[in-house]
Parts: sequence; C-alpha cells; structure tokens
Amino acid sequence: METKSIKAFGTEAAEAPLQTLDIKRRAVQAHDVEIEILYCGICHSDLHTARNEWHGTIYPIVPGHEIVGRITKVGEHVKGFKVGDLAGVGCMVDSCRECEHCKNDQEQFCDEGNIQTFNSPDKHLGGQTYGGYSQSITVDESFVLHISDKLDLAAVAPLLCAGITTYSPLKHWKVGPGQKVGIVGIGGLGHMGIKIAKAMGAHVVVFTTSLSKTDDAKRLGADEVVLSTDETQMAQHARSLNFILDCVSAEHNIDAYLNLLKVDGTLTLVGAPMDPLPVTSFSLILGRRSFSGSLIGGIKETQEMLDFCAEHNITSDVEVIGVNDVNDAYERLLKGDVKYRFVIDMESLK
Amino acid sequence: METKSIKAFGTEAAEAPLQTLDIKRRAVQAHDVEIEILYCGICHSDLHTARNEWHGTIYPIVPGHEIVGRITKVGEHVKGFKVGDLAGVGCMVDSCRECEHCKNDQEQFCDEGNIQTFNSPDKHLGGQTYGGYSQSITVDESFVLHISDKLDLAAVAPLLCAGITTYSPLKHWKVGPGQKVGIVGIGGLGHMGIKIAKAMGAHVVVFTTSLSKTDDAKRLGADEVVLSTDETQMAQHARSLNFILDCVSAEHNIDAYLNLLKVDGTLTLVGAPMDPLPVTSFSLILGRRSFSGSLIGGIKETQEMLDFCAEHNITSDVEVIGVNDVNDAYERLLKGDVKYRFVIDMESLK
Repeated sequence: METKSIKAFGTEAAEAPLQTLDIKRRAVQAHDVEIEILYCGICHSDLHTARNEWHGTIYPIVPGHEIVGRITKVGEHVKGFKVGDLAGVGCMVDSCRECEHCKNDQEQFCDEGNIQTFNSPDKHLGGQTYGGYSQSITVDESFVLHISDKLDLAAVAPLLCAGITTYSPLKHWKVGPGQKVGIVGIGGLGHMGIKIAKAMGAHVVVFTTSLSKTDDAKRLGADEVVLSTDETQMAQHARSLNFILDCVSAEHNIDAYLNLLKVDGTLTLVGAPMDPLPVTSFSLILGRRSFSGSLIGGIKETQEMLDFCAEHNITSDVEVIGVNDVNDAYERLLKGDVKYRFVIDMESLK
Repeated sequence: METKSIKAFGTEAAEAPLQTLDIKRRAVQAHDVEIEILYCGICHSDLHTARNEWHGTIYPIVPGHEIVGRITKVGEHVKGFKVGDLAGVGCMVDSCRECEHCKNDQEQFCDEGNIQTFNSPDKHLGGQTYGGYSQSITVDESFVLHISDKLDLAAVAPLLCAGITTYSPLKHWKVGPGQKVGIVGIGGLGHMGIKIAKAMGAHVVVFTTSLSKTDDAKRLGADEVVLSTDETQMAQHARSLNFILDCVSAEHNIDAYLNLLKVDGTLTLVGAPMDPLPVTSFSLILGRRSFSGSLIGGIKETQEMLDFCAEHNITSDVEVIGVNDVNDAYERLLKGDVKYRFVIDMESLK
C-alpha cells in the first residue's frame, strides 16, 4: 500500500523521553480523509501508554487521541467531509462495525475490540496505529467528527477524550434539571464533568481534597464545593445525590461516596485507579445503589457531545505547549500541575 | 396499653442458647390484626442478630421474620383481613409512611428507618420488637400479607424474606424471556433465586463451588450449572450474562463475575459479606457494568411476589423442625447443612 512519511513525536522505549520520529501514514483510501493536525490534547493515558504502565505497549509509540485539525484530502467515496473542513479524531479509528455494539453506535464496546488511535493493530499497514502527536492522520470518515468553527480550536481538542468520557455517563444516567449531581475530583476529566453537568441543568456538587480549588470549582460551574476530607461536610450530603461521576484515578474511599447517594443512585467511575477498590456490601444494599464504570462513548454520541458543547459554549481549560515541552508536561501532569489539560500546538512540530 | 403474655423462643445474651421466654404482645388496636403463628422460617440474619454479630442487638431477642399463620382477631378499622384468614409477616412491621420511599411503596428504604419485625424500637410498648419464634404476633394490617391456601404453608414461610429478597431485584432489573441470568450460590436465597428467575422466563445459569449441588441446581430449574472454581467453565460465559444475582454471604471474587456480564449488565448482591469486596475499575469501565445491592422489597411488592409464587406453584425447599431444634439448626446453618431453609413448626412451642 502506498504510504507517506511524516513527522511525529513519540518514543522507542518506556524509559526514553519522547522525541521526533518519522512515521508512515497510508495514502488516502476511498472512505478515508487526511487531516492536518492543528492541536492534540495530552491525556493521562498517553503517559501510561508511553511508559508501558498498563503493559502491552508496542514501540515505537506515538500517543495522542484528542485531535483537531483541517481536512487536506478526501477519498473518492467520502460523503460527510470536504477539503478545508475542520475535523476531529478521538480514541478510536475503527471497529468491526458488525457486532451488536457497533450496530448500536457503541463502538467503544466492540466485541472484536475497537481499533484505538494509538497502540492498536493497524490493519492497513501492519504494525501499530500512531496517534495525534504528529503532522497528519488518515482515518476512515466513519470515525471522524465535525468540529464547530465557533470555539477555540486548541480548547476543543480535549473534548475528544475528556469531553466524551464525562458526557457519555452523564447522558446515560439521565442527569438533568432537578437533580443533585456529584463530581469527584477536579482535573482533566472532572473539570469537564462540572461544565457539562451544569449545562445539562443539574445542581452540581464538587468534591475535592484541595481547599485551594474551591474558587476554581465555582468558576467552572459548581453550585457547592465539598472538602472531601471533612467528615462534617460529607455527612451534610448523606443520601442526597442522584448521581456521582467519579473522576479520580488515585485510590480513594468509594464507600464514603456511595453513602452520599439517594436510593437507586449510581456512582460511575471514569478515572481508573490501578488497585482494586474495596466496597462494603451494605453501602450498596441499604439504598439499592450501583457502583458502575463508563468508557468514552460511541462516534455518534461523540458528535452529539461536540454539538452540545458548541451550543453551550463549552471547551476545556487548556495550557497550550510546544511539542518540545511534552516531556516536561508529563512530569507536571504527574503532580497535577495543570489547569486542566495540556494541548500541543502541532505547528511546533514543523 | 393493654397487653397479653405469650410464649416465645429467644435468648437473653449473645453467648446463651435460645430457650423458651415469656413476652408481651399489645392488645389489638383499631388497625391491627392478631396472627396465631403456624410456621416461622430461620433466616441467617436471625442467627447474626441472636449472636450480636452485626452489633446493636438489644436483649432479650426473639428472632424470626418469615412468619405465616392464621388471623385470630382483627381491630375495628381493619379492612383487608378477617378472622380465620391465612396471613404472613416479613421483615418489617411498620415505617414512617410519610417519606418519599414509604409513599412510593418502598418501605424498606424508609428515611426514618423502617420498624423491623425484631430488634427494632417498639413504639407501642417501648423496648424492642419481638419476632416470629413465638405463639402470636400483633401487626398493623398495612404490613400483613395475604397467603394463598394452595401452597404448603411451611414451605411458604421463607418466601417472606428469602422470596422477596430474590424476587425484588430480579423484577427491578427486568429479568425475563430471552435473557441469560446468573445465580451465584445455592442456599436459602440462591435456591429461591433459581426458581423465581426460571419462572420469570430467563435462561438460568447457576454458579456453585460444590460439584455435588449440580443435580439439585437442575432440579430447582437451572438450565446450566457452572463450577465457579473451574476457570475454563467460567471463561465460556465471559461477556454473556444480562444479570447476576449474587446470593453468597462469604468473601468471593466479584471481578470474576463482573467479567461474565454483557455490556450494561448488572451484578446485584443480596448476600452480605462482612468484609469489603475488592472491585477492579476496569471490570466496570470496560463494559459499563454495575455492581449493585438490593434489600428485601416493599409490602406491595411482597404481596405481588406471594401471588406470583402461588400462580407458579413456587415454594421454598424446607426442613421442618421443632422449636427445641433451633440451636442445633443454627449450627447446621453455619455449615450450610440444610436444603435449603429450616422452618419451625410453631405447634412445638405450645
């Protein structure tokens, strides 16, 4: 298959810093679009994968699945996009398209396992897929999103992962007006959860371990902010929340939050702590409560989320960096030192 | 308030065996019925409470909340029952009746805490409520159930707790035809879960650690029986179950069962292991799965369950004992040596 050599930023080994690499992209096929990447967000899973912390990384790795850019070429059968359009790519670039989940617009749960934007088997070129820390990407239009020109493009990039990861469970569990919704943790995911839950009409209660984040939580849309280390404050919300979106990736006390839920309430994890979380049976039984998890969202729902964000003027709070700052940004990410998402200006790769 | 002295079987201390006691019942009030108790099932929570294993037991304690009998007196305003009717009492004898849960027929989740059949504050006489290991009980008719005369009365008694505890979650999570449903553990709860899930039309897969229970599981209604210690058998059911009812009270591997659920599947605990259960975030996230709990059911739903069981000819598998066998029965219960519920013939208390 015809290919094109482009510049990317990645690494050959778990211990090595990221650096400039040359990679190949396939030539545009009948259903493909080629996107010149303008911005790419940095998600914590980029770091996990670059450093092989979830195991299974195949090197070289080029991370990045919060991609926005402009279409530079379209295949002959492409119907939804034309050259010059703004476009986005999120966590997936393909799936089997035939299983019940794919047919049901939930490609994230594809029975065959969807093809992720990086570190998945590349069925066109062999080897692994390469992500968005690169000049361009070639993707089947079925996995490409339309991006509004009304919003700041750099700040839109994180919607492709952090946005859909929080929007999808808030939608699935029917968050809306008249509901009291908890958001646990104010980071890349949590700050999007606050904005989206508020835009959906809920009364938003933010839980944080950092008193210093109180003002920021309110600026983002919180109606109330609770210091989760203060048992008195926590007790004031017992049995009162309809839904909790838990955006924390570190170990934390799930029972303490389950007990804040009303009867039939659900706490949904979108952060992914590495160690198992202990849950007491009575925290669930005494209120018919549920402890759940949610994984990004399907392509159709991702477009819906982008349209929702355009309508409500929602973007991510970002710090735009050059590609040569990525290794420093990873270190700062580990310390939680970003408000609230790094985004690479891909112009810096040229 | 006028009272009546009756015989009961209970204990004055956690370490003491149960023995005959004299207790008082209130005289029948305007909305009360008096029931001569014919049979009372033995639930594991009787033993936990008698021995103060959940703490909070106030002595003397008279256990028993799987009560069937015949009405011997009715108050002047009683509308639903008459002398001579069969009647049942389950885990609750009152609640606030004013909170959203009580008004919504879910008295088990009463904001004030419902009044349980034993070891709850007795608002009429002071002290604590006394349960069904006794000659008679006086209860407001709103918490009394109608019992069909078509079924074996001794075998109906366990429906008042084990029946509703399994029926309610199977109904709540909409188990029915076309669904593959797992029941984990074959004991007092599990054997009812199998019968009810089968009667609801589901394809029932039973999980057990005892190969010796395979034939019995099939007799009870299982379509398939899986030895849960056999990884190959477990793997054959990966991502295939719509719902799992987990009836195990001992520690066990929740992740192993979560991974058998389809996308959007729910595992619901009705057993109550004492120690927290570790759950891996990815077991939930990768299939938007839920880990939940369920607590008995409301009075209206308990009547619905009893009617369902009468229609489908469902009772518990019981071993009927005399009241003097209760202490031995507790020891056998601890060893799982009962198929599948002890029921006391209360005639033996006379």
